[in-house]
Amino acid sequence: MVEHLPIVALMAKLALPEAPQMIGLDWGTSSLRAFLIGNDGGVLAERNGSDGIMAVGPDTGDLKGDFSRLAHAAIGDWLRDHGHLPLLACGMIGSTQGVAEAGYLDLPTELSALGRHLTSVELSIGELHIVPGLQKTSTETTAPDVIRGEETQLLGLLDAEQADATTVILPGTHTKWVKCQGHRVTDFSTSMSGEMFGLLSTSSILSRLAEPADDFHPDAFDWGLSVGADDPAALTASIFSARTWALDGRLHAEKINDYISGMLIGAEVAAQLTTTADSAAPFIVCGTADLTMRYSRALRRHGRQTTEADPRAAAAGLFRIAEQSGLVPTKENIND
Amino acid sequence: MVEHLPIVALMAKLALPEAPQMIGLDWGTSSLRAFLIGNDGGVLAERNGSDGIMAVGPDTGDLKGDFSRLAHAAIGDWLRDHGHLPLLACGMIGSTQGVAEAGYLDLPTELSALGRHLTSVELSIGELHIVPGLQKTSTETTAPDVIRGEETQLLGLLDAEQADATTVILPGTHTKWVKCQGHRVTDFSTSMSGEMFGLLSTSSILSRLAEPADDFHPDAFDWGLSVGADDPAALTASIFSARTWALDGRLHAEKINDYISGMLIGAEVAAQLTTTADSAAPFIVCGTADLTMRYSRALRRHGRQTTEADPRAAAAGLFRIAEQSGLVPTKENIND
Repeated sequence: MVEHLPIVALMAKLALPEAPQMIGLDWGTSSLRAFLIGNDGGVLAERNGSDGIMAVGPDTGDLKGDFSRLAHAAIGDWLRDHGHLPLLACGMIGSTQGVAEAGYLDLPTELSALGRHLTSVELSIGELHIVPGLQKTSTETTAPDVIRGEETQLLGLLDAEQADATTVILPGTHTKWVKCQGHRVTDFSTSMSGEMFGLLSTSSILSRLAEPADDFHPDAFDWGLSVGADDPAALTASIFSARTWALDGRLHAEKINDYISGMLIGAEVAAQLTTTADSAAPFIVCGTADLTMRYSRALRRHGRQTTEADPRAAAAGLFRIAEQSGLVPTKENIND
Repeated sequence: MVEHLPIVALMAKLALPEAPQMIGLDWGTSSLRAFLIGNDGGVLAERNGSDGIMAVGPDTGDLKGDFSRLAHAAIGDWLRDHGHLPLLACGMIGSTQGVAEAGYLDLPTELSALGRHLTSVELSIGELHIVPGLQKTSTETTAPDVIRGEETQLLGLLDAEQADATTVILPGTHTKWVKCQGHRVTDFSTSMSGEMFGLLSTSSILSRLAEPADDFHPDAFDWGLSVGADDPAALTASIFSARTWALDGRLHAEKINDYISGMLIGAEVAAQLTTTADSAAPFIVCGTADLTMRYSRALRRHGRQTTEADPRAAAAGLFRIAEQSGLVPTKENIND
């Protein structure tokens, strides 16, 4: 690749370490991911910790102090080494259980609007800017729904020029299915299949027969997928078959969890596809490698293609929002 | 009533307390119900305890001794006061986790066959006879399924002369839906909605917003019923609305659990009705007063009538099985 770079750019790349421009925080319920971001939006350093917002206990009367301490533990040395960089956070840190309520943008919304609606709070480590969530208001037939953090991932992974309607799946404890057109978000819904899997695989009667497994068992997962997708309405009955097939000897103990996972994802995907236009556009899946593989496998079963997004889309999204809001100079400014 | 009794019968009734004929045990996973049963099948005394089979820990090498001690604690005084009565048990006591594996009868089966297939085990309190369960073998498209304990309740509550096909619902942690014709059991399936309710209402993110309630909230339950029944395939997504409606302020904290209960039962009932013939025959519901009310309410929403069975049907069933097997004299013998 080197021979294609102009010599000046090559020298810059070799001689100067890229200067950090900002620190991005993806601060969720049970995790805190921190990104040290350079002037092209590249991630110079990354940290993953478990100091999610639940690490702050019941209100001690000093919420700002409590969250400042968590942030200092995660990124204090970056601030010491690089001076006071702009701090931008997304996720549950902006919820009523976070350090400050950062509000929501109503659907439909352009993701380019996020940077104009930041909430700022003065912490001991500096001023923290927080990205708003997205909310869908209720109708006669549908419940309200909310997103916090995923709006930033969406901005990081979506192509603004994409003209076709796109569905993005962000799998996790609460999997989000989001419909977009370019950078415009038109609809989304939340599925609890991830949390249900956690409960069933650790605390239900099904967990008594299951053995934890390090390996993925495609045969058991696909079997579950097929049962879940064939009759998603019967889920609460079908799931009991994890026990009866195990007692019957045809589902081995170390495969039970993959069978359950397949059934939950199979039922979820089948139900979601009934509300999704039949288009050739691939679904974009953005999550851990394991969950992305499972959802892609479920969608392929229905003849739908998937594209896997970089799970660090949050970092790219935080950089774009920082550009929108003027926290960092835009590329145009740099080129000037 | 007294004036209608012949004088001899009246004297017998006044002078002699009804003689106990047998002791029936409904011995499940987490409960032990004991019945002292008279010569007409009537329950003379009843005890409800929590010494289910899980009260016996990992195999100590003396399973018979362990279970004998539990039984002695529950009914030792009955045996002392009335001599060694026949002992008949149904439920998980006959499973591989119980005192002896009591086998299964294959579907379709006549409940009159139960008494001919008892398993007997010698305990220190006397010989314990155990009722077999029922099993449905798997087919190309359906999983195997098993019942233990409900077969005895069915015998206690069903009318042998009923010519129409009947559906019996036995709600609980694992709700059983059983199809019968007279005393012939033709099909059944198990739903885990009860266990899912337990997990969601105690251990999920939904439980963080919920407040326990002593009262039943029909508005919240019916709201959940409607959401669950309208699109049972979307259950894993719809259930998240318990959180979003609560955050929205329109679902009060003390009503969240009834909303969740309604949604799970609504989805379960809607899915089960798709496999049930459209008949005018009422559904028989046999469970606790609270669960029976909830299932009846869900079925009425679909225009289906319900009949509530005596939740002590297990005692009546145990007596009939004791008659079938000759453990107690049949009525015909008494009249001889």
